[in-house]
Amino acid sequence: MKSNFTRTKALFELPKNMIYLNGNSLGPLPKSAVKKTREVLEQQWGRMLVSSWNKAGWMQQPIDLGNRIGRLIGAKRNHVVVGDTLSIKVYQALASALYLQPDRKIILSDTGNFPCDIYMAEGLLKSLDKGHEISLVSPDDIADNLDKNIAVLMLTEADYRTGRMHDMKLLNKLAHDKGVLTIWDLAHTAGATEIDLLTNDVDFAVGCTYKYLNAGPGAPGFIYIAPKHVNNIDPALSGWLGHADPFAFELSYRPGQAIERMRVGTPAVIASACLDAALDIWDQCDMADVRAKSVILSELFIEQVEKACPMLSLASPRNTKMRGSQVSFEFQESYAAMQACIANGVVGDFRAPNIMRFGITPLYIDETDILTACDIISTVMNKKLWDRPEYKIKARVT
Amino acid sequence: MKSNFTRTKALFELPKNMIYLNGNSLGPLPKSAVKKTREVLEQQWGRMLVSSWNKAGWMQQPIDLGNRIGRLIGAKRNHVVVGDTLSIKVYQALASALYLQPDRKIILSDTGNFPCDIYMAEGLLKSLDKGHEISLVSPDDIADNLDKNIAVLMLTEADYRTGRMHDMKLLNKLAHDKGVLTIWDLAHTAGATEIDLLTNDVDFAVGCTYKYLNAGPGAPGFIYIAPKHVNNIDPALSGWLGHADPFAFELSYRPGQAIERMRVGTPAVIASACLDAALDIWDQCDMADVRAKSVILSELFIEQVEKACPMLSLASPRNTKMRGSQVSFEFQESYAAMQACIANGVVGDFRAPNIMRFGITPLYIDETDILTACDIISTVMNKKLWDRPEYKIKARVT
Repeated sequence: MKSNFTRTKALFELPKNMIYLNGNSLGPLPKSAVKKTREVLEQQWGRMLVSSWNKAGWMQQPIDLGNRIGRLIGAKRNHVVVGDTLSIKVYQALASALYLQPDRKIILSDTGNFPCDIYMAEGLLKSLDKGHEISLVSPDDIADNLDKNIAVLMLTEADYRTGRMHDMKLLNKLAHDKGVLTIWDLAHTAGATEIDLLTNDVDFAVGCTYKYLNAGPGAPGFIYIAPKHVNNIDPALSGWLGHADPFAFELSYRPGQAIERMRVGTPAVIASACLDAALDIWDQCDMADVRAKSVILSELFIEQVEKACPMLSLASPRNTKMRGSQVSFEFQESYAAMQACIANGVVGDFRAPNIMRFGITPLYIDETDILTACDIISTVMNKKLWDRPEYKIKARVT
Repeated sequence: MKSNFTRTKALFELPKNMIYLNGNSLGPLPKSAVKKTREVLEQQWGRMLVSSWNKAGWMQQPIDLGNRIGRLIGAKRNHVVVGDTLSIKVYQALASALYLQPDRKIILSDTGNFPCDIYMAEGLLKSLDKGHEISLVSPDDIADNLDKNIAVLMLTEADYRTGRMHDMKLLNKLAHDKGVLTIWDLAHTAGATEIDLLTNDVDFAVGCTYKYLNAGPGAPGFIYIAPKHVNNIDPALSGWLGHADPFAFELSYRPGQAIERMRVGTPAVIASACLDAALDIWDQCDMADVRAKSVILSELFIEQVEKACPMLSLASPRNTKMRGSQVSFEFQESYAAMQACIANGVVGDFRAPNIMRFGITPLYIDETDILTACDIISTVMNKKLWDRPEYKIKARVT
């Protein structure tokens, strides 16, 4: 399959006079999501009502959608399931990994992990109350800290602030050499980079679908478990839709087949209509093409910004192999500078303390967009447009 | 406020030639949900993109929606929050209750509880691994089994098969007399009966919004925690949106203010648009009116069915005070009989082994509907329309 990004761009609703470089936070609206959602509301919910659980395939949807995501991240069929939120999926993955490692007590992660992953781990460890500890080291120090006391290596593949990427293949191998299981959070890489979970022998992976996958605000998360583990997991969140026979209404839990056991409650049907629409676009794309284009656009963006804005300092790795699909710069007044960029039509976002973050998303951002964005950023920075009081008032940001 | 059920009925999309007595499983589509969802998609997500987290109030929505549900269940403001699924909310409530009861090891529940609640408890107890046990007794034996070894009484207020209701006020008092904390699952009573959580001194309550509340398939769950407890809870599912300062991205969890700490991941914005639409109708209703009308309609339904169908045996309590807003009958061939009812325009559902279940929902079901439904049921039963092979093939049912 050869991806056609002119065609995919036309499939998104993109506001006029805005270059949206924030798809690493919330992807834009796929045009067909409006129609799909309306169909689910009016035809399925409205007319077929409860019979849609079977007749419209609502019950099967989390696995069907999981399979379509699975293609983008190198998973075998029926090893990814959609549901809940990324936070819940992190909890499930970590509980499952610790279940497989009863004799080890340390969870190794890094200070570049998304804080929520650490929070969810903290909550789980408090429940377990078995002397587990979280060891947080610098991203560069992961390899040196892998030893036979570590139960699980839990990392977000790309740092949410800088886009710095771990070497998944290498760390996964080093971890396994020490008997350590791995959990990869793909929040900033699913739909952004090439991922090969099966070939790289990843044990667990989790992700969200509202960033690069463009499935909308609060769209469901997903979880992957390696084929060799999936039938050995006794789920911590043992919900009825992960039961071997949910509609037998037995009074005790029996885990369902393979990844089905990671389902918990009733699936989010309306949200899934948007995910379905988003995946209709992804179904036309090859991740190798997406990654190649992302690298070209990112290099162009860095080159142009650095040429025009010497006051901005690259916070992302310069080495393309170590960088996800976002480019971040440091600047002392980065909050105000980002507000000024947004006011002038380039939407990125700010991350404390001093990061300006721009997402590079080939499905709907092209070279012309990048060049226009760089011109605007250059004007904002060189004319100090950010130096206005209204840009310095901090709202709660996402 | 005086509820006007002629007006509320007109606000739902109800298929022609169908009397929908299954709103206890999945409520029907509020007409305005289509427009609301479209607005959220096109105006908020589509045009305002990531800025909607603040500007469209997405971030605040789980509390705003929780407050509107709170009015229907007798909660104080800012003590209910919406999110995740009922299953997850059960887990949170039980983990919280056990956290407050470190010295007691038994969770008392009944065999009429919805199995998923038991499953979620099993999963939690396995994680805790501290010798907790679940004691399941017959619904009538709860009071006799409350003693000082019980940590938590966890019940679904109305039995999903028969609509049998517990006496929440009495059991809650008896539980507290023994130092037992209570968790009430309101799946089959929120929007169906009068509930007064605060006056009845309930400790924890959870529920879903896709049944009587009509918020659509997979709509979010909710959780209530009593004012006296809420700031003492250390959440098991400690997600970033339950953090005291989510956007500070600190590396360790600090629980947010009050019920905010029960938030976990990113809120389900699209699904919440439907919940918002559904609550626009509920905002016009008084639960005392809804309950009074439900009792009238239920009595009429029982009277008519019993008069016409002697082969059906009432499975629901005859005493209206002990019955939720559904009416169930036993019949040996109840699966086929329900299929025949559905084929003839009366939609209820089947629950194993032999229950025909009908939801009574005053917001969109009136006396005429009840009488028409009873005529059809009578025809199906008396002419043995159910005795056809095609009605006996069991699909997976919800």
